[in-house]
Amino acid sequence: MLLSELQNIPKLKLAATCLELRNFLIESILKSGGHFSANLGVVELTVALHYVFRSPHDKIIWDVGHQAYLHKALTGRWEELKNIRKTNGISGFPKIHENENDAFGTGHSSTSISSALGYAISAKNKKLKRQHIAVIGDGSLTGGLAFEGLLNAASSETNLSIIINDNQMSIDAHEGSLAKMLQNIDPKKNFFTEMGFEYFGPEDGHNVLALIELFTQTKQNNKPKILHIKTIKGKGYKAAEEEKSKWHSVKYVKVTTEKLPSPTFPKFQDVFGKTLLELAEKNPKIYGITPAMPSGSSFHFMMEKYPERCLDVGIAEQHAVTFSAGLAVDGNIPFCGIYSSFLQRAYDQIIHDVCLQNIPVIFCIDRAGIVGEDGPTHHGIFDISFLQCIPNLKIWCPMNASELKSMMIEGAKDRSAPIAIRYPKGRCYHPQNMPSEKDIFAKPDLSKSKNRLLVISTGIVSSTIRIIKRSNWDHIHIAKIKPLPVAYLTEVINKYDIVLIFEEGSVVGGFGSEVIRQVQQKRIDCKIYNFGIEDKFLTHGSREELLKISNLDEDGILKTIKSHLK
Amino acid sequence: MLLSELQNIPKLKLAATCLELRNFLIESILKSGGHFSANLGVVELTVALHYVFRSPHDKIIWDVGHQAYLHKALTGRWEELKNIRKTNGISGFPKIHENENDAFGTGHSSTSISSALGYAISAKNKKLKRQHIAVIGDGSLTGGLAFEGLLNAASSETNLSIIINDNQMSIDAHEGSLAKMLQNIDPKKNFFTEMGFEYFGPEDGHNVLALIELFTQTKQNNKPKILHIKTIKGKGYKAAEEEKSKWHSVKYVKVTTEKLPSPTFPKFQDVFGKTLLELAEKNPKIYGITPAMPSGSSFHFMMEKYPERCLDVGIAEQHAVTFSAGLAVDGNIPFCGIYSSFLQRAYDQIIHDVCLQNIPVIFCIDRAGIVGEDGPTHHGIFDISFLQCIPNLKIWCPMNASELKSMMIEGAKDRSAPIAIRYPKGRCYHPQNMPSEKDIFAKPDLSKSKNRLLVISTGIVSSTIRIIKRSNWDHIHIAKIKPLPVAYLTEVINKYDIVLIFEEGSVVGGFGSEVIRQVQQKRIDCKIYNFGIEDKFLTHGSREELLKISNLDEDGILKTIKSHLK
Repeated sequence: MLLSELQNIPKLKLAATCLELRNFLIESILKSGGHFSANLGVVELTVALHYVFRSPHDKIIWDVGHQAYLHKALTGRWEELKNIRKTNGISGFPKIHENENDAFGTGHSSTSISSALGYAISAKNKKLKRQHIAVIGDGSLTGGLAFEGLLNAASSETNLSIIINDNQMSIDAHEGSLAKMLQNIDPKKNFFTEMGFEYFGPEDGHNVLALIELFTQTKQNNKPKILHIKTIKGKGYKAAEEEKSKWHSVKYVKVTTEKLPSPTFPKFQDVFGKTLLELAEKNPKIYGITPAMPSGSSFHFMMEKYPERCLDVGIAEQHAVTFSAGLAVDGNIPFCGIYSSFLQRAYDQIIHDVCLQNIPVIFCIDRAGIVGEDGPTHHGIFDISFLQCIPNLKIWCPMNASELKSMMIEGAKDRSAPIAIRYPKGRCYHPQNMPSEKDIFAKPDLSKSKNRLLVISTGIVSSTIRIIKRSNWDHIHIAKIKPLPVAYLTEVINKYDIVLIFEEGSVVGGFGSEVIRQVQQKRIDCKIYNFGIEDKFLTHGSREELLKISNLDEDGILKTIKSHLK
Repeated sequence: MLLSELQNIPKLKLAATCLELRNFLIESILKSGGHFSANLGVVELTVALHYVFRSPHDKIIWDVGHQAYLHKALTGRWEELKNIRKTNGISGFPKIHENENDAFGTGHSSTSISSALGYAISAKNKKLKRQHIAVIGDGSLTGGLAFEGLLNAASSETNLSIIINDNQMSIDAHEGSLAKMLQNIDPKKNFFTEMGFEYFGPEDGHNVLALIELFTQTKQNNKPKILHIKTIKGKGYKAAEEEKSKWHSVKYVKVTTEKLPSPTFPKFQDVFGKTLLELAEKNPKIYGITPAMPSGSSFHFMMEKYPERCLDVGIAEQHAVTFSAGLAVDGNIPFCGIYSSFLQRAYDQIIHDVCLQNIPVIFCIDRAGIVGEDGPTHHGIFDISFLQCIPNLKIWCPMNASELKSMMIEGAKDRSAPIAIRYPKGRCYHPQNMPSEKDIFAKPDLSKSKNRLLVISTGIVSSTIRIIKRSNWDHIHIAKIKPLPVAYLTEVINKYDIVLIFEEGSVVGGFGSEVIRQVQQKRIDCKIYNFGIEDKFLTHGSREELLKISNLDEDGILKTIKSHLK
């Protein structure tokens, strides 16, 4: 269906159209995998928006953007939907370079109001007649950026429409102050009208005619306004309506002859969650803090048992960090768990509120490295680079789940400094290479080796390298990369002609970069090369495929080593 | 005066005490220099807080903290106040390692609610009877972090008191939505009560007895609450009450025999502001965006003439960046000016909203490098390190004001990528070394040099190096550090035995680090050393003294060069 076709459907037939489109979506996403419930929740909204507004002339910006599948289909991407999030397929999020109807690329939350306001101010100054619509969920509205945007939009004298898609959910249920405010809202006088907005609603977000009426009416209104609509996440698919967190996204399972990692291998996330619970059982000072990712980061183990010490603060990464600092400065031991790419949003708080004061918060950086299908907005590629320059902070990169566990136990005891522990999404593939707890930090004895090439690595790459058979080269895994063990590294490296350093992170300013900088200055006569994610944004696709593209899978690493052995 | 003495003054004499304390402050700050008006505005508040609450048992957290001078004096730092912000003197901001009454270190805005909530939740779980007070200005309340904190505090079931010090000011006047909301607040039903807070006020913040009454009463209330008080910035000093921005801080002028830089040398900030205006005059697509620093960053030149295109978005760095992205994606040319240390707060927006989409926003990073008296919260030391790892972004570091101007002109034309231009606080000291516009990016011809040592630098350090007389070493200035001119650098460096790289930024992950990484891999046989700010937090003091400590002044650089010439 083309936009023009949709726009010619008689209004009275639109409810039936929505039903068809919803069924199409259900079938399509269950096959392709991807975000599920959020897309089912906005079928009527998407139809109404494209019925009333004229994209790409009018600008529609989807906050987070994981709910834009139908928008993508209606704007010329029906066929591509089956390959959404796959290598060479379309992105799971809006992307300006993918289609002119994607007015602003999203992925992270709370950006839609600010970016739409940019368009709206621009149109006002150019005297362009154009509509500007930001669609934001109540979950995303808790992010500070959204509030900054609201404050500016309210006094902007533009025609910006902010549609609040109120489904009382983040990925997990959220029951905070904002959810309550929206539930009990007084349409005449509220939070938004006090700011200066005109307020319309609440409206049933599954009544397509009511939405069309609302948009048609308010389109004439040249002021910044809030259109508050209520929807049900997972609408129309019973299981998803009932178990919302579980159906947030569904997995694409490739039919393959490859041996997939056995599900008995532990997930980093579960080892994190269970270790946290064990620590919390023994010590009342242990806290767990998550910004809206209790299930994604496996905080639920502790949360079920110690809800008063394991807190979901909502989509609020900045607050999660500064709040953790407040807990720690009063003598507690907070484990603050944030996805690597979302930690970018709390960067100043890590520097200013934690590290500058040398407050021993323990950051557990989940999804560090390549995340896969969610793509460049979600890869955790920069964390080593942006953390390594911060004084006081310790940075640890476990090679597998057992090392992660040891580090958490050690971190809970080490109150001398803040610590960042980074680990990737998913399972620990190579448990056969798990060091026993006591030799995790042991340094291999290379004194008798006659090899000329040394491989150094950190994090999960070390697991991959350990399963590569080797005879004419040596390998060491550095788990604790800051402070860097410069004396040890200098001594070891001195024996070799060529050193290759691997990490699952940016090559710029990362672990390898810092080893080169520090060791090179010690008058070592050997060549050191570093490998990781190249200095460009990495596309979406499966984690395995992207590791291959980045030459960080077994084959890629082996090829790199061999080419330097010559 | 000790806290215990203050607490024994009869209530009826407290107004007189406040008068005395205010006069003491005026005299002291006019001598020492430092933040002026904000401190005069909170005399009664500070007295009332310490009269009712028992610090350090009770936790008082001052947002930003530049208004805590009287708090510092009353908590045992009377004598030290005269050396506030000077090398070896006390900090201009609260600091946990300076005094136990400073419950949380501040400097950046909007952190107090989150950190105080950390203490409050901790106390609740420990069943501690303790009061928790966050004092936050209406300006700081516009920062997204404050909103995230409010949302969490409102539903926290703690006794947290949030005092809103409402003076209708950031550093400059702010007249946004929040200011209006506070002005027209309905004490019965408002923004805060909707969130779940109990609300008290508005109260006259210069009536010390009324404040004492308010605190004594609400202390019994075990719920999260807002105490809204109205104060006048600069209260009691007529000039400061009238010209609030001008009197935000006053300068300490050291009596010295040193030749101070002539004020006829241009400030980087003014060159920025005037160039922006020139560009804006010629091109309607030029925008200026500042998060609450119109005078500090010299946006006022453009703002006076083109208010519709030069916008102060309030203390809202995240929004400033994403909003700029929205402007740029619609074909405009936004110059987004943010202090380096505050840019940390918009890190995710730079990556996710600008660089990932390769949207040509021009970031003008003010206060990059050592800022001086404001100290470690305000030094701009990390920007090269945290920006260099971001794909697509160009990074330019002018050595002086004329180069800054050229770069802005070039940036406005270059629509191929986002650009970050970083420059320090203050004056361009060495205009005699200003290259003419056409030879700014020219590369010196070193082909006939017989020297064995090469010095490379970027940014203002290059100006310092240019005035050092040299005969047996060579120097090149690299203004555009990303993308790095690797081929050129490799070719040049190849001729030398020793290369020294200087920059005013962290040695970890900075310019020098990246030169070493890239050039070292080209099989160059020379030693490269990098120098900059060491990997620890740098204290406060004058810019000159801190450059000396960091060996980045003329003497320090010369000493480093000489030691490597041997």
